[in-house]
Amino acid sequence: MSFCEEQLTRVRPIWERILDHRFLKETRDGTIAHETFATWMRQDYLFVEAAIPFIAALMPKAPLEHREALGQVLPVLEKELELFRERAEQAGVDLEGVEPSFVNHAYVQFLLASAYTKSYAGAFTVLYVAEKAYYDSWMVVRDGIEEGSTWYPFVENWTSDAFRGWVDFLQTNLDALAESSGATEREQMAELFELTAKYELAFWEMAATGQGWPCLEGEVT
Amino acid sequence: MSFCEEQLTRVRPIWERILDHRFLKETRDGTIAHETFATWMRQDYLFVEAAIPFIAALMPKAPLEHREALGQVLPVLEKELELFRERAEQAGVDLEGVEPSFVNHAYVQFLLASAYTKSYAGAFTVLYVAEKAYYDSWMVVRDGIEEGSTWYPFVENWTSDAFRGWVDFLQTNLDALAESSGATEREQMAELFELTAKYELAFWEMAATGQGWPCLEGEVT
Amino acid sequence: MSFCEEQLTRVRPIWERILDHRFLKETRDGTIAHETFATWMRQDYLFVEAAIPFIAALMPKAPLEHREALGQVLPVLEKELELFRERAEQAGVDLEGVEPSFVNHAYVQFLLASAYTKSYAGAFTVLYVAEKAYYDSWMVVRDGIEEGSTWYPFVENWTSDAFRGWVDFLQTNLDALAESSGATEREQMAELFELTAKYELAFWEMAATGQGWPCLEGEVT
Amino acid sequence: MSFCEEQLTRVRPIWERILDHRFLKETRDGTIAHETFATWMRQDYLFVEAAIPFIAALMPKAPLEHREALGQVLPVLEKELELFRERAEQAGVDLEGVEPSFVNHAYVQFLLASAYTKSYAGAFTVLYVAEKAYYDSWMVVRDGIEEGSTWYPFVENWTSDAFRGWVDFLQTNLDALAESSGATEREQMAELFELTAKYELAFWEMAATGQGWPCLEGEVT
Repeated sequence: MSFCEEQLTRVRPIWERILDHRFLKETRDGTIAHETFATWMRQDYLFVEAAIPFIAALMPKAPLEHREALGQVLPVLEKELELFRERAEQAGVDLEGVEPSFVNHAYVQFLLASAYTKSYAGAFTVLYVAEKAYYDSWMVVRDGIEEGSTWYPFVENWTSDAFRGWVDFLQTNLDALAESSGATEREQMAELFELTAKYELAFWEMAATGQGWPCLEGEVT
Repeated sequence: MSFCEEQLTRVRPIWERILDHRFLKETRDGTIAHETFATWMRQDYLFVEAAIPFIAALMPKAPLEHREALGQVLPVLEKELELFRERAEQAGVDLEGVEPSFVNHAYVQFLLASAYTKSYAGAFTVLYVAEKAYYDSWMVVRDGIEEGSTWYPFVENWTSDAFRGWVDFLQTNLDALAESSGATEREQMAELFELTAKYELAFWEMAATGQGWPCLEGEVT
Repeated sequence: MSFCEEQLTRVRPIWERILDHRFLKETRDGTIAHETFATWMRQDYLFVEAAIPFIAALMPKAPLEHREALGQVLPVLEKELELFRERAEQAGVDLEGVEPSFVNHAYVQFLLASAYTKSYAGAFTVLYVAEKAYYDSWMVVRDGIEEGSTWYPFVENWTSDAFRGWVDFLQTNLDALAESSGATEREQMAELFELTAKYELAFWEMAATGQGWPCLEGEVT
Repeated sequence: MSFCEEQLTRVRPIWERILDHRFLKETRDGTIAHETFATWMRQDYLFVEAAIPFIAALMPKAPLEHREALGQVLPVLEKELELFRERAEQAGVDLEGVEPSFVNHAYVQFLLASAYTKSYAGAFTVLYVAEKAYYDSWMVVRDGIEEGSTWYPFVENWTSDAFRGWVDFLQTNLDALAESSGATEREQMAELFELTAKYELAFWEMAATGQGWPCLEGEVT
């Protein structure tokens, strides 16, 4: 069993809660409140924006053969931001002046801190899990959403062949990195695998509830 | 008005919620549940442990005259960990094998990401606010707690002259850094000031509620 | 006088030695030994390869409006590497298995250490000076080299309108960063300006002499 | 054969040039020019000053059991700086306003870039080799220098039981890190082992010759 298969099995209880999350099911079924989806859009726009520097921060640690692939994904993410802006305009959602919610801010800090303080294989684990969770999550939505839905282009984006190819590339390379890692590093990779899954779950929950910063009034906008 | 005074005024609504937090009042009044205080001890032990690398990470960016002071605080934090272990033994609290709660993990990521991606003055702002919040918080507890309380040594630690001297040193130097910063950097410092206050508030709330990771069973231990 | 003008004036004695360097003049005049130019090609290929992670490392610290420009230059540098490979094949120069010379290795460490330990404006200064030195250096070569020269495509690359546009973009933005910086940061930027010029000069000298690691036999290959 | 033994054997040709360097022999024999030793003192003072942030930068990546040892060595290095100041005053050497020579600057950049971009085991390799080279170098000097020499306290410092204990601690732990590393990481550690030895050799040569920045007048001061 490859490292990724082994870890996906190990974190299955968390992964199932991600895929069962009401945000995904309601989006799939077309019952999600417009404002709830808008909250997700505003927060995820900030998150994607922040994921670009995370990937850039991996590059100085990356082996030469990974570096080019990482560099090529940066413009893809810039294009993803355009998709958000285009969808936002279509749906009358304002992306300007949004502040990150607590969970969003925390997740971004986790990405950055991993890039700087963990080994390349460790930080690459975080990247893989975040992307894999998105692919699997949007596959849930795809299985039922009407193609005419305003939100359909997001489904297309993260269930496309291109995106699946990227996730496959990450999985193959993460397995290879794990293969050539020592036991200590592999343990740390397993820990980061689980942590990233927990942050992903927290993000969907934040999107569904609109929860802001603990003990401070006001929901995220 | 100095930068710190100005910012403390600006974030007063958050600061007041920190100082009014029931965790502090119940600790002061001796009504806090043993298990609630134990949760805080276990989590804060991990937090202090993680704060040591945060301060170390500031050193390569620090001006020469700050570097020695930062280096000297590292053994102080190691001693703080001993205080936790000594109190834990006294109170029958097990510090072994504890995992960070979500809020704790997130706060540590914020410290580290700030150290690596923000300017020195920005990261120094985070350090100051975290320490200042602790001083002010434990001053609330001091104002009423019985000296015979098992938790009294924590009060002594963070309301001591030595700790106040450290907070004063940080405040004086943060004001000086802000003074010699340009407008863009000062704005970022103000943003980090507020963010740190929000994380501090979230930490007390987590300690009081024992909240773990979103959507995952089990409280923190 | 803008920050860049002021600094270019201040470091003029170093800049003149760069532009007067025999490597540039001999390349311009067609008198450079094939092996000497080949040494430069092999070393500069490694340098450009290493400059990509340097630019990526700036991105997490960059303001949003710079980040996209930095991301877009990464594929340009990948294309520059292709130019090296294409020229190398044309001229029978082997780029495989080359080790960085001492000066080359040192310069790359300086780029990386600046990206991680200096402020964004400081690290951006290093980027500007390195690119500006290349533009000015190859303008010296352009002024005389025969268009049929095997090395002409390098001249075209670094004296093109596109490259000048990039250097202009860097200069405008460095001036803006300096404008909004405080006095302490501006001093550090000035120091990094001079240091980068010194490393550039050292690089041409290494290319011309083929000098390897101090006290170790063998020239660079 | 342990990793360190294996690597020390592999880099023996470089190591022998370090130990045979005329700077060490002349210091041992009492024939070194006062000004030559003074150059080394001024440059090494800056180097030790810069090594403190290097060690601090390792801490956020270090396993918990290493972190305390690294933290404890910081005050030792601050004390080493005092030894320089005390010796400088004794010998009439001015340590104020010294600028790093090219080799010194480059070596420091290598330390910092390694701390930020290499794995912990990789950066720890750099630390070990630098300290081991110092121990072995000063053992050469010890074997002949008169105890009344002005420079004797440096010999005492780096050949003391305490310093040997530190080098032994580093060696034991580097061997353990290599043991638990995968093949890819061990290769990178070997490369960093050799690079550090080359920088050490370059440093003694710079001290002996007083060489400054390439193509720029003036020796280091």
